[in-house]
Amino acid sequence: MAKTPIATLGEFGLIRHLTENLPTQQPSTLKGVGDDAAVMNFGNVRVLMTTDLLLEGIHFNLEYVPLKHLGYKAAVVNFSDIYAMNGTPTQITVSLGVSARFSVEDLEELYAGVRLACERYGVDLVGGDTSASMTGLTISITCLGTAKEKDIVYRNGAKEHDLICVTGNLGTAYMGLQLLERERMALGDRQMQQGENVKAFEGREYLLERQLKPEARRDIIEALRKAGIKPTAMMDISDGLSSEILHICHQSNCGCAVYEDKLPIDYQAAVVAEEMNLNIVTCALNGGEDYELLFTCDINDYEKLVPLDDVYIVGHITKPEYGTNLIGRNGEEMALQAQGWQAFKQNQNTQPGR
Amino acid sequence: MAKTPIATLGEFGLIRHLTENLPTQQPSTLKGVGDDAAVMNFGNVRVLMTTDLLLEGIHFNLEYVPLKHLGYKAAVVNFSDIYAMNGTPTQITVSLGVSARFSVEDLEELYAGVRLACERYGVDLVGGDTSASMTGLTISITCLGTAKEKDIVYRNGAKEHDLICVTGNLGTAYMGLQLLERERMALGDRQMQQGENVKAFEGREYLLERQLKPEARRDIIEALRKAGIKPTAMMDISDGLSSEILHICHQSNCGCAVYEDKLPIDYQAAVVAEEMNLNIVTCALNGGEDYELLFTCDINDYEKLVPLDDVYIVGHITKPEYGTNLIGRNGEEMALQAQGWQAFKQNQNTQPGR
Repeated sequence: MAKTPIATLGEFGLIRHLTENLPTQQPSTLKGVGDDAAVMNFGNVRVLMTTDLLLEGIHFNLEYVPLKHLGYKAAVVNFSDIYAMNGTPTQITVSLGVSARFSVEDLEELYAGVRLACERYGVDLVGGDTSASMTGLTISITCLGTAKEKDIVYRNGAKEHDLICVTGNLGTAYMGLQLLERERMALGDRQMQQGENVKAFEGREYLLERQLKPEARRDIIEALRKAGIKPTAMMDISDGLSSEILHICHQSNCGCAVYEDKLPIDYQAAVVAEEMNLNIVTCALNGGEDYELLFTCDINDYEKLVPLDDVYIVGHITKPEYGTNLIGRNGEEMALQAQGWQAFKQNQNTQPGR
Repeated sequence: MAKTPIATLGEFGLIRHLTENLPTQQPSTLKGVGDDAAVMNFGNVRVLMTTDLLLEGIHFNLEYVPLKHLGYKAAVVNFSDIYAMNGTPTQITVSLGVSARFSVEDLEELYAGVRLACERYGVDLVGGDTSASMTGLTISITCLGTAKEKDIVYRNGAKEHDLICVTGNLGTAYMGLQLLERERMALGDRQMQQGENVKAFEGREYLLERQLKPEARRDIIEALRKAGIKPTAMMDISDGLSSEILHICHQSNCGCAVYEDKLPIDYQAAVVAEEMNLNIVTCALNGGEDYELLFTCDINDYEKLVPLDDVYIVGHITKPEYGTNLIGRNGEEMALQAQGWQAFKQNQNTQPGR
């Protein structure tokens, strides 16, 4: 049988390929593969379920990621998926695969981060699995959450004229990563670990924090509820705005116009991008790991939306035949492209062949 | 800070150490860490949740495990944990980390196994995550299940005079593994993969099947329900009977007497053990991966229990001061010992240092 390299499908293509036409048999399954979380009906409330697998060397680099931060982030990114369904995260399980280079104290650090995240977000750690691994650290987290049926927001509800909104700012976590990578190259690992890089990061702590210790936007979910706004579609931005808005447009069968000059960009991030000769707009569109929320809402909610802190209207939903476009500062239209997450290609370059 | 090697705590010690004193904040959390599955209350039914992480080179060897079988087994061992709570598995998520040596067709094979297991057991595959890995294959599965509150069986309900029962036979999956390992050493990998080992396994297919394609004992759970028996404590046997009965005795605060001559042992397994100079009783007590059920039930259920197919009474629960003992064929008592799963130690030997 011919063997097809995984890179030919890409991450999204592979997942789609493996999970298409999955039948469901359980009456409790309301929504399977294809959104931020699966949705189940077990009685009074709907139960949401999401999962993430983090692998050393692919998703994190322990040369500059402290284990406590890693534990915190691994938990929070799952909470973010539940909030992105307009739900409340309630329980997680944590499975670890650890090689012999890790000590008990290392795992205590990692767990301290997970526990801190759980405490802050009111989530219970209810189980897991810990085992040896041949190399490196593997973290797998599954999160349950709850929502009332009428509150759940899927990716497929956007409609023409809806406003496209994002929270916080975009590309900042990516710029934090670039800073860390640059210092690692310049200083070598030993100094990184001993904190000799502190000076190089002065005044840029916010960028590092966005990369190393992101927060999930519970505050926005609460603010929207308080304001009486229910988004028509929503997801969290983990792979970059371009990729995520294309998911919403694809699933909602619509087009979009996103305005370059409306993208919320952090001042520090812009300065560092300039320094590094990077295009900050490209970083904001494709950077990834922001864990901000992207949502669409009815144009009639405009008045309620405007007073909300840290929410930015970046465009609107269009008819599908218009396409999915970015409107540049000069008014030119460019088709948005999902760069998504190219780890399969990177991996193929560094790990050639069986 | 002093660094403590993980092997000094062992697998069970490590998990206990990392998860002790975990507070819960969610009213929906009824039972967190410490049983086959966590238990949540979301309304009409109780929701069970269990998770397993499988790592190449630690939990499976692709030199003799076909990917389809691996997918099947990875799903079924999670179903087994839900049945062990007297529940019904309903949904799973599957996360994969795959290195570039795997092709799309490889992952299709793996998923075909997962799908087959889901189809057979009526479980829905509702989500997951697929990403690149630096080396090897990582599989993380989380399973949800349901049960009525009154039906759930924990590990902590065993009481003096209860009967100790096991299903199927013990040590068989371990003997299957020994056979596969022996042939791998003798033939080398190339021939293994080309099926030249078929003859060496003739008449021993059952042992291989127990190792490569175990089933979860849904049939027993149904038979117990039909017979009107609710076990007082239950768990599945993944790390060997010794280890598991000690968990039940510890959590139920009791002792036990297990009779050597009552242990159900498969004839083929006994023959192969003889051939390999292994003690079949030791294999039955500590072999692991049987995925049979271990349960205790009230002595008054004896009459209902006896007619059940494939259920064997192997001993009884005692006062805690009696200890946890194996009664040999000559009547001598030996303290049962949890060998459990020694992967952390193995790993330390083969992977020295950071």
